[in-house]
Amino acid sequence: MDPSELLVIGDLIGVAVFAASGASAGVAKRLDMFGVVFVGFVAALGGGIFRDLVIDTAPLAFTDWRYPVTAAVASLLTFRFHPQLDKLRKSVLLLDAAGLALFTVTGTLKGLHAPLPAVGACLIGMLSAIGGGLGRDLLTAEIPAVLRHEIYALAALIGAVAVAGLVWLNLDSLPTLVGAAVIVFAIRVVALRRKWSAPVPRVG
Amino acid sequence: MDPSELLVIGDLIGVAVFAASGASAGVAKRLDMFGVVFVGFVAALGGGIFRDLVIDTAPLAFTDWRYPVTAAVASLLTFRFHPQLDKLRKSVLLLDAAGLALFTVTGTLKGLHAPLPAVGACLIGMLSAIGGGLGRDLLTAEIPAVLRHEIYALAALIGAVAVAGLVWLNLDSLPTLVGAAVIVFAIRVVALRRKWSAPVPRVG
Amino acid sequence: MDPSELLVIGDLIGVAVFAASGASAGVAKRLDMFGVVFVGFVAALGGGIFRDLVIDTAPLAFTDWRYPVTAAVASLLTFRFHPQLDKLRKSVLLLDAAGLALFTVTGTLKGLHAPLPAVGACLIGMLSAIGGGLGRDLLTAEIPAVLRHEIYALAALIGAVAVAGLVWLNLDSLPTLVGAAVIVFAIRVVALRRKWSAPVPRVG
Repeated sequence: MDPSELLVIGDLIGVAVFAASGASAGVAKRLDMFGVVFVGFVAALGGGIFRDLVIDTAPLAFTDWRYPVTAAVASLLTFRFHPQLDKLRKSVLLLDAAGLALFTVTGTLKGLHAPLPAVGACLIGMLSAIGGGLGRDLLTAEIPAVLRHEIYALAALIGAVAVAGLVWLNLDSLPTLVGAAVIVFAIRVVALRRKWSAPVPRVG
Repeated sequence: MDPSELLVIGDLIGVAVFAASGASAGVAKRLDMFGVVFVGFVAALGGGIFRDLVIDTAPLAFTDWRYPVTAAVASLLTFRFHPQLDKLRKSVLLLDAAGLALFTVTGTLKGLHAPLPAVGACLIGMLSAIGGGLGRDLLTAEIPAVLRHEIYALAALIGAVAVAGLVWLNLDSLPTLVGAAVIVFAIRVVALRRKWSAPVPRVG
Repeated sequence: MDPSELLVIGDLIGVAVFAASGASAGVAKRLDMFGVVFVGFVAALGGGIFRDLVIDTAPLAFTDWRYPVTAAVASLLTFRFHPQLDKLRKSVLLLDAAGLALFTVTGTLKGLHAPLPAVGACLIGMLSAIGGGLGRDLLTAEIPAVLRHEIYALAALIGAVAVAGLVWLNLDSLPTLVGAAVIVFAIRVVALRRKWSAPVPRVG
């Protein structure tokens, strides 16, 4: 299996996991089947659509059928089996951290190859990783979770900076990029376990 | 009158109807005149703007003055005459179904001609039909109606698949495409009358 | 200092001010530090990103590092010093009016040079000036302030029409364009002082 195939497989796992997170949010809001699938679709593909619009390529969500179909199937499975999924919450959080890690790395690389300068590529890498979750929360009328109380976007941003640094140093190879993804994953998982949070404003 | 003129006229009717639906939502939220027009504008043109960004053409809302002007006039009329409009609610729902049907067909065709593959074109056709309503509900801080309890997006999706099928079979002519629009319209109207709904999640 | 440098400096002042307004909204919602910076980023750069997607150029927010860095620094300062900022509320409103004026002029000019026709350029000029505030309010789950009770978007629209008129008459030079910006600023400031509002719907 060549690296680009691995990348697609990893990407689709991320899509499935984010779709499940979106569909779960839809179920919690008592949306109908279509609504659940739609929120799943946005959570899985929204970040990538925004990324592709910014770097001016046709969004993969519309040009590669495997992306929307994966999102739809994962959302439908969530719709059907959500009580059982609840018991898997811990695994879902781990998979979500994996999706975050993967989308950060692929998004930053796509930004750098656009080519965007490093700051822009890091931003778009982070946004492609967190954008789906933002869309999910907007659709379900919640203040986005990522803006509130967790080290989530920060993990993505650190990973994006790592990727940009590797590319700048000409050290971007499959193992080092996997390393950057592992950093994102590790920060996210440790933050979950230790309940790390970013600082909140002082009461004025 | 040639077919493309008919298409534009139909398109502008859809714009007017969706603008009225958006403006009504704005009136219900006690927005000021500008807010009412703005929500009308988003409801009428938001789906098409998203579609055009995805297929990488300049959005009609900004390149053809008839589109924003139609949306603004319909919104202002709604702002001025909304108590009377309430009595026309039934006609508005029928016109809204007509707009849904039309935007589905034109959106799917534009997607196929971009060219997007069939799955992507169907998605973008559906999204261009429901996107304005989503934007309307986001602006007025509601969970989008389309995600909740009605056969609305599903009607659009069925119509989009029908259009893609006709094009694939080389059977896309004005009469068959009108047929696809009629299918969307009929499903939507019957769903309204019979209060059909998509399934909701089982209580876990 | 040549005019284009002046323009960038003015633009960055607008970015800083809008970032501070977004970050203040984030602080008010008790978001964490990342959330505050993110809402500041969206408020400062969201309108311009939308504008650049419509006119199909790479968004400045991702191609010129000075834009996101200015937004981030202004947001962090707001996060750190927000109680003191409250005392500066009046100055912030004046600076916000200045940002509105500036983004209207630059947005309309960029639209005309895209080239969009005049109606589209005016719309995109107005949207690039108000879009960030819309994004800020969507993220913090508020019905956008601009849609409710103030002469804000209307000031931008009048300025956009003035800019389009100047370009049409071949009278667009630095002094006349500054004049258009001053009109926007003056309308906004007088509206604030006199508590002018657009009409609201009659109770039906």
